[in-house]
Amino acid sequence: MKHKILFVIADGLGDRRVRKLSDKTPLQAATKDNIRELYRSSMIGLMDPISPGIVPGSDTSHLSIFGVDPKIYYRGRGAFEAIGAGAELKHGDVAFRGNFSTVNQDFVIVDRRAGRNIKEAELLVKELNEKIEPIDGINVKFFHGTEHRVAVILSGQGISDKVSDTDPEEAGQRVLASKPLDGSKEAEKTSKIVNELTKRVYDILSTSKYNIEREARGELPANAILLRGAATYQELPKFESITGLKTIAVAATALIKGVAKSLGMDVYTPPGATGGVDSDLLAKADAAVKFIKQDYDMVFLHVKGTDAASHDGNPENKVLVIEKIDKMIGRILDSIGSEMIIGITGDHCTPVELKEHSGDPVPFLLHVPESIITDEISDFNEITARKGSVRIRGLDVANILLNYSNRAKKYGA
Amino acid sequence: MKHKILFVIADGLGDRRVRKLSDKTPLQAATKDNIRELYRSSMIGLMDPISPGIVPGSDTSHLSIFGVDPKIYYRGRGAFEAIGAGAELKHGDVAFRGNFSTVNQDFVIVDRRAGRNIKEAELLVKELNEKIEPIDGINVKFFHGTEHRVAVILSGQGISDKVSDTDPEEAGQRVLASKPLDGSKEAEKTSKIVNELTKRVYDILSTSKYNIEREARGELPANAILLRGAATYQELPKFESITGLKTIAVAATALIKGVAKSLGMDVYTPPGATGGVDSDLLAKADAAVKFIKQDYDMVFLHVKGTDAASHDGNPENKVLVIEKIDKMIGRILDSIGSEMIIGITGDHCTPVELKEHSGDPVPFLLHVPESIITDEISDFNEITARKGSVRIRGLDVANILLNYSNRAKKYGA
Repeated sequence: MKHKILFVIADGLGDRRVRKLSDKTPLQAATKDNIRELYRSSMIGLMDPISPGIVPGSDTSHLSIFGVDPKIYYRGRGAFEAIGAGAELKHGDVAFRGNFSTVNQDFVIVDRRAGRNIKEAELLVKELNEKIEPIDGINVKFFHGTEHRVAVILSGQGISDKVSDTDPEEAGQRVLASKPLDGSKEAEKTSKIVNELTKRVYDILSTSKYNIEREARGELPANAILLRGAATYQELPKFESITGLKTIAVAATALIKGVAKSLGMDVYTPPGATGGVDSDLLAKADAAVKFIKQDYDMVFLHVKGTDAASHDGNPENKVLVIEKIDKMIGRILDSIGSEMIIGITGDHCTPVELKEHSGDPVPFLLHVPESIITDEISDFNEITARKGSVRIRGLDVANILLNYSNRAKKYGA
Repeated sequence: MKHKILFVIADGLGDRRVRKLSDKTPLQAATKDNIRELYRSSMIGLMDPISPGIVPGSDTSHLSIFGVDPKIYYRGRGAFEAIGAGAELKHGDVAFRGNFSTVNQDFVIVDRRAGRNIKEAELLVKELNEKIEPIDGINVKFFHGTEHRVAVILSGQGISDKVSDTDPEEAGQRVLASKPLDGSKEAEKTSKIVNELTKRVYDILSTSKYNIEREARGELPANAILLRGAATYQELPKFESITGLKTIAVAATALIKGVAKSLGMDVYTPPGATGGVDSDLLAKADAAVKFIKQDYDMVFLHVKGTDAASHDGNPENKVLVIEKIDKMIGRILDSIGSEMIIGITGDHCTPVELKEHSGDPVPFLLHVPESIITDEISDFNEITARKGSVRIRGLDVANILLNYSNRAKKYGA
């Protein structure tokens, strides 16, 4: 009998001892009454998403966990963000991550995010797409992500991702001139296009009625786009081709949606799922239940709030999100029971006191049918995980899921 | 002082909780009074023969455990079976696994194994070797394995293993025409030879006096050979070259004998060793004692019965074979003591309730001299192994044996 698979990734889940939590980790401090139900037939341990000590990005880690070696396939974050924001990329397109920002006439940055919540963002992106002309024969397209985030795509012949960012990543600095990062003609041409683009975007945005209205209300105008992370889009191996698992991702974050789409997964964002601490995780649970009952073999459920709380340095919020995840899992178990393979892990650690990703190994729990030999688990956290039997890398995960769900093919005879 | 090494692989040893054994694993349920003597100075843990979750075949797993990466060297099972059955293969020969079978005049299969125990098999193989002519310049040779099993070897220029099987693996089906699996001339030529071979084998066998006698007695004639698993023979690195360990394999199963011979090991099958549940394991113990006292550095002792019982779904027999292994080890300890490195593991798990190989990690025990730091072991089974310190892959085993037997060379300065 082939088991269905529920795989939950809580972004940045792993942590260290937190002073504000009486030296407990957030996962240790959180009440986990529903996850606890899984302990009687689960194995736990530690996963190194890439390899021990490597600090993963969310993109490289998710690739690895889904069986695609980032050392071979990773070409930067830009293309994933763009795809997650709805872009259709062709092999060879160059994608950038962008921020709407506020600059003065000398292109000195006043606010890197133009106040962050730009309610006219969709309209500004629409205006840009209507007014922008090809530059040196290269087409430009804009896609709105969330809040101040945009993706910018260059399409055409003879371009390259070997160009530097225009985003100095600090207010008070001037917008940078993009420079070629290698000696190629393509990089030279692309950097010139990017610099021309910076000016044209400013010309369009600074005269937009939406920005004139913002200024009239005393708000910062979103009059520039800062670019970073140029990445040539490269077709990825598809998760279903590698594993045979028909999979849907339930996720709200553009980057993760982009990775999932690039791997050929279906993607669904329930209303109310925001990618933030306030995300409606019960809506995600309901979506997961629906898809598990359909013909999907696997539902990948992504929660971003743990990472968001960590980057904000807010341990109480991280505990809160973990307790929401516990309730989310409870809702799923209440609906369809635990006769599934259920994986719970993070894509990396983001210690709240560090406010950044770290290369510590990530706690990993795998609930399996009762005949399979498991660990004797007293709790699921960073400390108990060190005593469990699982000690794997991200690239092992897909094989383990196939094995315990009775889908693996024998290697040899 | 360099220690001798006894390495015991019980095929398919690892298991899951078995209902018929009151939710114990066979290794847990078995009485192990002799292996228990090793606990005071042993380490235990889990081995992934290939990597976590991958379901190993016996061939890929043994290669890995003996230090040869199957991802680089594995070319299919056929050549190993043939070598195990006594064939001498040259680099480039193409080997097939074959079954004596019964077909009607239209080549529709009546019995895939011609009744299974064909007492004239040796004589039929001899007759085939005497009567078969080269086909399109390619020599054909037959070797008898056990029961209905034969190996068929093609030797000559311009042949390939990229051809499909003639065995439809189901009675009532017609023998398949072999087809080229790539666009090469070699595959085209080889598939034609295979199809011509099917006819010529039928012509020889259907007129053989042994088959005429079988039919007269109301037995099924062994009048065809079904072929599968074409594999080009490729020279493997030799275990002694890799490790310096002069090694003899004590084994009865053709596949394992073939792997051992391909790795350059000496191979010995004691009388009474059958590869089945009924195998005389004390004869294997006596052989091991003899070889350890000779100038061999290592004796590899293979027991197939655990896997056979698992594939049959018979947990009581699996317990029985493990208890026979315990007595086998007892006989060796009684003769020469425990002043050796003694490894006990499986090549993969074959859970009896699954009746197939699985990718679960395999329990691993290593008995070492008393000064070496070891685990506190209460029992050797899948549950205690999850708490031990050993967490390795198959490719690590040879290095570990070299280290604890004081034979490892420093890597670096």
